[in-house]
Amino acid sequence: MMRTIGLQQIEDIALGASLLGAGGGGDPYIGKLMAMGAIKEHGPITLLDPDEIPDDALIIPMAMMGAPTVLAEKAANGRECRALYDMVSKYFGKKVYAFMPMEAGGFNSMFPIVCSAILGLPLVDVDGMGRAFPELQMVTFTIGGVSATPMALTDEKGNSVLFETISNKWTEELARAVTMSCGGSVAVALYPMDGKTVKQFGVKRIVTRSEELGRAIRSVKESGSLTPEQSFLKFTGGFRLFKGKISDVLRETRGAFNVGTVVLDGIADCKGKKAQVEFQNENLTATVDGIIVATVPDLICLVDTETFLPITTDALKYGKRVLVVGLPCFEMWRSPKGLELVGPRYFGCDTDYIPLEVRAQGVR
Amino acid sequence: MMRTIGLQQIEDIALGASLLGAGGGGDPYIGKLMAMGAIKEHGPITLLDPDEIPDDALIIPMAMMGAPTVLAEKAANGRECRALYDMVSKYFGKKVYAFMPMEAGGFNSMFPIVCSAILGLPLVDVDGMGRAFPELQMVTFTIGGVSATPMALTDEKGNSVLFETISNKWTEELARAVTMSCGGSVAVALYPMDGKTVKQFGVKRIVTRSEELGRAIRSVKESGSLTPEQSFLKFTGGFRLFKGKISDVLRETRGAFNVGTVVLDGIADCKGKKAQVEFQNENLTATVDGIIVATVPDLICLVDTETFLPITTDALKYGKRVLVVGLPCFEMWRSPKGLELVGPRYFGCDTDYIPLEVRAQGVR
Repeated sequence: MMRTIGLQQIEDIALGASLLGAGGGGDPYIGKLMAMGAIKEHGPITLLDPDEIPDDALIIPMAMMGAPTVLAEKAANGRECRALYDMVSKYFGKKVYAFMPMEAGGFNSMFPIVCSAILGLPLVDVDGMGRAFPELQMVTFTIGGVSATPMALTDEKGNSVLFETISNKWTEELARAVTMSCGGSVAVALYPMDGKTVKQFGVKRIVTRSEELGRAIRSVKESGSLTPEQSFLKFTGGFRLFKGKISDVLRETRGAFNVGTVVLDGIADCKGKKAQVEFQNENLTATVDGIIVATVPDLICLVDTETFLPITTDALKYGKRVLVVGLPCFEMWRSPKGLELVGPRYFGCDTDYIPLEVRAQGVR
Repeated sequence: MMRTIGLQQIEDIALGASLLGAGGGGDPYIGKLMAMGAIKEHGPITLLDPDEIPDDALIIPMAMMGAPTVLAEKAANGRECRALYDMVSKYFGKKVYAFMPMEAGGFNSMFPIVCSAILGLPLVDVDGMGRAFPELQMVTFTIGGVSATPMALTDEKGNSVLFETISNKWTEELARAVTMSCGGSVAVALYPMDGKTVKQFGVKRIVTRSEELGRAIRSVKESGSLTPEQSFLKFTGGFRLFKGKISDVLRETRGAFNVGTVVLDGIADCKGKKAQVEFQNENLTATVDGIIVATVPDLICLVDTETFLPITTDALKYGKRVLVVGLPCFEMWRSPKGLELVGPRYFGCDTDYIPLEVRAQGVR
């Protein structure tokens, strides 16, 4: 149902989306500040349920592309939203009906809100991942055969590029090269779609789910016989994979990605055990004492043991105490086509995909 | 004056342009085959003198971008010419009046002829360098403040990209990144201009000059009291810098450029001396016994000692006997703005520009 998104909703969406970001999707604090600034200046935005949009409406996903560490240093501004809007409108010779996010994440859930506020267009409550992924072809729309192009790209300096490619993997390849040349982060409009396609392949009501998750995280407390941790796991539907203290973070920026490993020493009931989480912008695998307990496309989330605030891969620090939680991914990712796009083998992990519910049985 | 370019003219233009390529501009043999194929299929093309084109006509330079070694392996085909033409026409919503070359060189003098033949459009007898240079901002039009964008790029697979940048250096930066991702060579349409701008800043009648040089090279012989070598130097207006045998070629492909050094042991009157020529696609400096005898933007050309056929940097081989010849560059390159763009310091050579006529005094 159509409703309005103002400052309080943004606070919650940013928080919840940064949990769904599974370590990626960028810094929720920067994203939140940007969105709040835009809403303070231009007023609240309208959120549309996907079922409310006309089949022939032109819907444009808006996102930032690049390494989250760089993104946090050079956030987008109004010029970029307008430049992308102009490029897409000119290309189609048709009015854009609404924007939508591409992924759930601290930054990429916020950037489309900024665009909506600045351009006075509604936002659709849908995305193409239901989480965050590092490469642009990794969306449910690719499974549906939708082209990522025409794709518009612009940087903060004023350079802009329009891509038309033979496959979404080629879009990723070429846009990534330009992103690196532009300094590691850019703003993009891609997967232009009609309303019908959005409804058919999108992850529906993900903005609302982010908001609900965010609200719940902010108010985690003991409830009845449940500890705060149990209560957190209950409302997220999460699997408790490990509890530990970060003892090492290995990180490098490679091809405009943040790639690395975080090593954890067990605490509380996990004392004596060791875990590690591999990531490429987002967390890819979680391993406890040499046994894999979760892999992409399921969500592996690290949250603070006291506040349950999600910790993105760019904010990992020695000494932090974290709970490692697994969340089942959107069902379309578990299909053969989905696993070809975002299964563990795509990311170079030498294991088949086994659903989180099975993998995590031993540790729950 | 308007005239027709057929097979014999192509033979001469390719040969002459490959001398003006100063080691770069790609393989004249491959370029020639492409152009001849296109003319056999579509008929001769029309060459227009720059003074014949209307001031408001839309003129599009067409070129291949990338490392000459790669270019020779994957030459462009008709699809690319048409794709670029369509992108440019769509962007301007206006008919393209004629094509023109961007640089003189074995390959890039031929590709615009291919485009003209396939699309049935005339070619203008002008370019933006009067030689070949490795980066796309290195044209007289940059000195004139003309933007390289909108620039269209396409590869042999069918990917295409449209750039709009804040400076021509940024066009180079972004287009180079895409060129590398596309496998090291692509076809481009850039510096779209009106006829007035072409006339104001272009290097006029360079196609005709290439043709005359080519014809002269093919017919070099003793004439009167002149040896073939003296006769070659006379009609090219060249400075004889060195004569030697190639004793080493150091070459690497770096950032879609062919970069390296060729080392020469003197022969004939140069016996006992050593020379080396540095290159980045094109020859940058010539040094004899430690003394620089020529630098960019003047042309440093290596030709066979017997046939006087130019040797491009991608064809350098141990044992070849070559004459190193210097040719003065187009006057606009010797201005402060010109030297900022293409002077020796831009290429990392630690020397000021001194005109060839002065440098070569000692060796002539």
